[in-house]
Amino acid sequence: MSQKPSGPVVKLVALEDYRALARLSMSPAVFDYIDGAACDELTTRANRRDLDRVALLPLCMRDVSALELAMAVLGHTFRFPVGFSPTAFHRLVHRDGEVATARAARALDIPMIVSSMSSISLEVIARESGNDNLWLQAYLFKDRELTTDLIRRAECAGFKAIVVTLGCPVPGKRDRNLRNGFRLPDGISAANFARRDLANSNNPISSVAVDIDPSVTWRDLAWLCETTRLPVIAKGVINPLDVAPALELKLSGIMVSNHGGRQLDTTVSTISVLPEIVRAVAGRVPVFVDSGFRRGTDVFKALAAGADGVFVGRPVMWALAVGGEAGVVGAMNLLVEELRVAMLLAGCASAADARREAAHLLRWR
Amino acid sequence: MSQKPSGPVVKLVALEDYRALARLSMSPAVFDYIDGAACDELTTRANRRDLDRVALLPLCMRDVSALELAMAVLGHTFRFPVGFSPTAFHRLVHRDGEVATARAARALDIPMIVSSMSSISLEVIARESGNDNLWLQAYLFKDRELTTDLIRRAECAGFKAIVVTLGCPVPGKRDRNLRNGFRLPDGISAANFARRDLANSNNPISSVAVDIDPSVTWRDLAWLCETTRLPVIAKGVINPLDVAPALELKLSGIMVSNHGGRQLDTTVSTISVLPEIVRAVAGRVPVFVDSGFRRGTDVFKALAAGADGVFVGRPVMWALAVGGEAGVVGAMNLLVEELRVAMLLAGCASAADARREAAHLLRWR
Amino acid sequence: MSQKPSGPVVKLVALEDYRALARLSMSPAVFDYIDGAACDELTTRANRRDLDRVALLPLCMRDVSALELAMAVLGHTFRFPVGFSPTAFHRLVHRDGEVATARAARALDIPMIVSSMSSISLEVIARESGNDNLWLQAYLFKDRELTTDLIRRAECAGFKAIVVTLGCPVPGKRDRNLRNGFRLPDGISAANFARRDLANSNNPISSVAVDIDPSVTWRDLAWLCETTRLPVIAKGVINPLDVAPALELKLSGIMVSNHGGRQLDTTVSTISVLPEIVRAVAGRVPVFVDSGFRRGTDVFKALAAGADGVFVGRPVMWALAVGGEAGVVGAMNLLVEELRVAMLLAGCASAADARREAAHLLRWR
Amino acid sequence: MSQKPSGPVVKLVALEDYRALARLSMSPAVFDYIDGAACDELTTRANRRDLDRVALLPLCMRDVSALELAMAVLGHTFRFPVGFSPTAFHRLVHRDGEVATARAARALDIPMIVSSMSSISLEVIARESGNDNLWLQAYLFKDRELTTDLIRRAECAGFKAIVVTLGCPVPGKRDRNLRNGFRLPDGISAANFARRDLANSNNPISSVAVDIDPSVTWRDLAWLCETTRLPVIAKGVINPLDVAPALELKLSGIMVSNHGGRQLDTTVSTISVLPEIVRAVAGRVPVFVDSGFRRGTDVFKALAAGADGVFVGRPVMWALAVGGEAGVVGAMNLLVEELRVAMLLAGCASAADARREAAHLLRWR
Repeated sequence: MSQKPSGPVVKLVALEDYRALARLSMSPAVFDYIDGAACDELTTRANRRDLDRVALLPLCMRDVSALELAMAVLGHTFRFPVGFSPTAFHRLVHRDGEVATARAARALDIPMIVSSMSSISLEVIARESGNDNLWLQAYLFKDRELTTDLIRRAECAGFKAIVVTLGCPVPGKRDRNLRNGFRLPDGISAANFARRDLANSNNPISSVAVDIDPSVTWRDLAWLCETTRLPVIAKGVINPLDVAPALELKLSGIMVSNHGGRQLDTTVSTISVLPEIVRAVAGRVPVFVDSGFRRGTDVFKALAAGADGVFVGRPVMWALAVGGEAGVVGAMNLLVEELRVAMLLAGCASAADARREAAHLLRWR
Repeated sequence: MSQKPSGPVVKLVALEDYRALARLSMSPAVFDYIDGAACDELTTRANRRDLDRVALLPLCMRDVSALELAMAVLGHTFRFPVGFSPTAFHRLVHRDGEVATARAARALDIPMIVSSMSSISLEVIARESGNDNLWLQAYLFKDRELTTDLIRRAECAGFKAIVVTLGCPVPGKRDRNLRNGFRLPDGISAANFARRDLANSNNPISSVAVDIDPSVTWRDLAWLCETTRLPVIAKGVINPLDVAPALELKLSGIMVSNHGGRQLDTTVSTISVLPEIVRAVAGRVPVFVDSGFRRGTDVFKALAAGADGVFVGRPVMWALAVGGEAGVVGAMNLLVEELRVAMLLAGCASAADARREAAHLLRWR
Repeated sequence: MSQKPSGPVVKLVALEDYRALARLSMSPAVFDYIDGAACDELTTRANRRDLDRVALLPLCMRDVSALELAMAVLGHTFRFPVGFSPTAFHRLVHRDGEVATARAARALDIPMIVSSMSSISLEVIARESGNDNLWLQAYLFKDRELTTDLIRRAECAGFKAIVVTLGCPVPGKRDRNLRNGFRLPDGISAANFARRDLANSNNPISSVAVDIDPSVTWRDLAWLCETTRLPVIAKGVINPLDVAPALELKLSGIMVSNHGGRQLDTTVSTISVLPEIVRAVAGRVPVFVDSGFRRGTDVFKALAAGADGVFVGRPVMWALAVGGEAGVVGAMNLLVEELRVAMLLAGCASAADARREAAHLLRWR
Repeated sequence: MSQKPSGPVVKLVALEDYRALARLSMSPAVFDYIDGAACDELTTRANRRDLDRVALLPLCMRDVSALELAMAVLGHTFRFPVGFSPTAFHRLVHRDGEVATARAARALDIPMIVSSMSSISLEVIARESGNDNLWLQAYLFKDRELTTDLIRRAECAGFKAIVVTLGCPVPGKRDRNLRNGFRLPDGISAANFARRDLANSNNPISSVAVDIDPSVTWRDLAWLCETTRLPVIAKGVINPLDVAPALELKLSGIMVSNHGGRQLDTTVSTISVLPEIVRAVAGRVPVFVDSGFRRGTDVFKALAAGADGVFVGRPVMWALAVGGEAGVVGAMNLLVEELRVAMLLAGCASAADARREAAHLLRWR
């Protein structure tokens, strides 16, 4: 895709290229808000390092003429086994904000998890994008009504799932934001909380955080599962020990995540715990994963290791900044095309093929 | 905290920022004296590398609404599980020297180990700071009277513990100091030894070292335990083999330390031996640790691995240089706040929680 | 060898020197086409890293006065256990193209695998070079006649073996080529396909790829073995799991290859899987290996690990660019001389010696 | 030590400082001849990396008041457990050449192995230095008389041992020398071979190499042991497999060496095989080691791992360049002082102490 019509023709051949171009299109503080992570950002690096360290041992002479890329989860068959992780305030990088992203997800036929910290209200996102496969990310607030109100609104707006963020009673310590004194620019706010003071704060992340309940346990998540007719996915499981209590609830999925390294620095990479979590889940619910996936081979490794789908966060923001809806579609097509090549070259016609051969296909160091 | 009123506003968001600012406030030779370590400084780097390599696997959905950070040791419940390692000559970096540091420790309600090589006499530190929870670091000198005299004075001045440095019959070879030809500036001396020639030497570290007894064994430490009514902590245990003989004495604590890499280069990192030492101690005495701890997650890892408290040395000097008492309080609050966030995000309401789950929380590489 | 008569005298003492000089003799886009690999090029780096990590433990006091370097395979005793991997379009770097390379192979008495994507037709290469020990690389095309036609022509032109590329139903995603918008310069084409439209395309690699059959299985390779009287070597085995089905066919050799990292990025290095593949093959057919071999010690390690011969690709292109036929002869003599020194210093008079002592000679990390 | 009286005062606090200063005192080609190693010089780096990776776990409260540093081998008690590895052509860096080095060895009371490629004849070295504890390095030449003649001369000149270089039938491929076209300057020659044409060659290393017998086996070394009344040390054992045949001969010592990485690149580091070789030797003869030792802790680790003595090569050349005899004495005193500090801080009063506790003192990664 070529952007910047009046400037040089740029080539975007890898997701990292979107990052490079996005960087030039926004203020350093906003770029750092997106790009940054907690403290020394070691988890962010570990996510990449550990994905890069999984070596592939392609199989040859397998019939890969009929590639199967679809992901059937939560009653819908999405076209690709990838989706959008929840990221806040898309209007920070593009005037159309989450509407553009949701349109891209609809065009691609992949799931988008709308952040409850969206810069456009969830109703407007759903209506303007025409995307009827959106999932909503939610927190368990101290004031449970704040949570249930959001969930009701998501139900009414036709959202298809609730993704509850676990293990984040406080926001991570983001040193880049602290150095930059980052605050939301005028005109950007937490649109879902329009009637509350926190939406007007120019640091709504911290304001919302104040309302997140640090006392919640699995029992509270059980309550939340009861409180909605929508399927509930638990996002943020990283310790295999947490799979057993999670499976006792009526969850519709688990998402392995370290929040892209933005919460607790030196948290283990997701790819390195994924196999243990998949083993513990034992097929009872779908397993999703995010945090650091940038290449088709990354997605392929997660699928082979047993993930049902792989979600990306920052790349969506980069692509949105670069080209709005078309930018996001382009970036995801690029990722999916890399995945397609990876499957062809690895000799796997489907994720099921890859998973069956995983012991031979992947070498962990 | 903003320093340098007439200059730019600086943001200090991590302990390393204090180092960066401190560097600008002192001569390179003094900075090197503080920052440097033995020979190639590999142990100093290993301390960081090994802390960074311990990966965390946060637990979620644990009630962390009531965080417990206190450290109850030696008959006092300190507010936080951190303290100040002994470092020499605080007046090198701030005119108020150890008095300012001791005031900060008092304000924070955390233990400070006053170096016997302090630039202000132990009596003045105690009196001027009003801190009645100070511990005194001591050596076993050839001239035992030199040791007992110091201990007596500490007892009289209201110190609460003696921390005996083990395994340092000579100072480490500090290549930076040798290159700089480092000597103490005029007006800075080893104040506790005012009546001895060594205080007037401008290289009192070496002068004192000459007096340290290289023939001491556990028997001599046993004698020292008998000679004082104060609790005695043995600092410098790094080999798990040394735990058994130490436990035969009437010690009140063991401090795992490689002296920040300043003594024997290529000594193992403290975090990597901490679990073995904790196992060997088996709860019979408190275990403290220092050498390279800079982040809340570092402290959290040590607590999970079984340490009762974590001590820091160089950061205290940086913060003292940056802002005297207030600088030290600010730096330590920053560290403690990082610890608090780490505990919240790791799903541990207390050090005991962390320790109980350590096998699942920490992944060692 | 001194090149560039009117310029400075250059010293070429290692294969990497040929790369450095070649870089100066061609357009960046052509250099990148040769030098580049798939995506992040991690496999290319892994090939080097893993070769460098195999440590040698030389044996001493062995009679190495009669070194044996010959490689007897497919009915011919080649002078050295090295050969040329198939690389496309030699006329990109030297006007004499594959004819010069084939002459060099003849002068050296080592095997050359002519790429089916050669820039000179296989008949002309054979005739003009006088090399009657050429092997032809081939694909299994959707249109089987395209494959059989090439093989017939190779048989008629006196080629001695067919090397079938496995596991490449699509070309790897080469980010450097995409960034450069790489296309073949005018006058360079896929000469073996002169009567087809793909030869006239300026992106014949992709054009040919379209014709490669992604549905092929071992059965199709069995058919190919039947269809020619020439010995067939299967190139591209990397997963030990693929050895068993390969051995059921009438193959005359297996080549362990990750295509120099140009196909699927993050594929494991060839040296790291070579021992397992050698074990699985158990001597039933010769095993060859390529991908990243640059030093005599690299070749020695592969021989000790059980390879019958080691092939190089990019270095041939570099040397051809630097000096045509003489350049290639010079580069290979340099590599062989390094191998000779390695064998003398390791105390091995032959590859058989090395292989017998491999458990003691090589240390894998 | 301060050199260059008319220039700035320089501080030499570590052996690497001698390298830095030496570099400024000689032509780049000579520096590269000394500093360089085979091919990519990976073994040279591995020697350092593996020494640095051995972590120390100091023991405390051991009586180290009576340090024992002496090395009793071959009937003499040297003052320190260090010595000079054979290095060629000392007159390349200092006009007094090997005489200065031998005087330094005498002053230090440590063994010096005179290279047979010395730039001063062995008789002159012995006579002018007054050192009656020299050892002579020798090769097994094709012309055995050349070997026996040298040994006779060493016997007559009062040398105390013969150190036979094993496993070097050819010189390593030194890429730096090849790039530099290195040749000996006028006036420097292989003085021991004055009556032979090779001494007059300006590439006597290669000339001598031509005469080294690649057919020698342990039988030939047995013959050499018979042919001299001097004790014979076998230098260059790196593979533990070679210990058994070596021990069948009447050797007086084994030196573990990879020749500083100058022979076969990617050879394993000496420190990493030392423990296995020590185990295989089982105390039957002294074990020496060289290749990459630069710090007191390096020497200490080798002693703890069972070496009787540690030899250094390049540092002798650097120190000789920097200050002749005094330079060498200064550099070695620095190394020995570092060793002394290491022993004091590790809690070991002798090499025997260290060796007895080695399992606890050293941690190998």
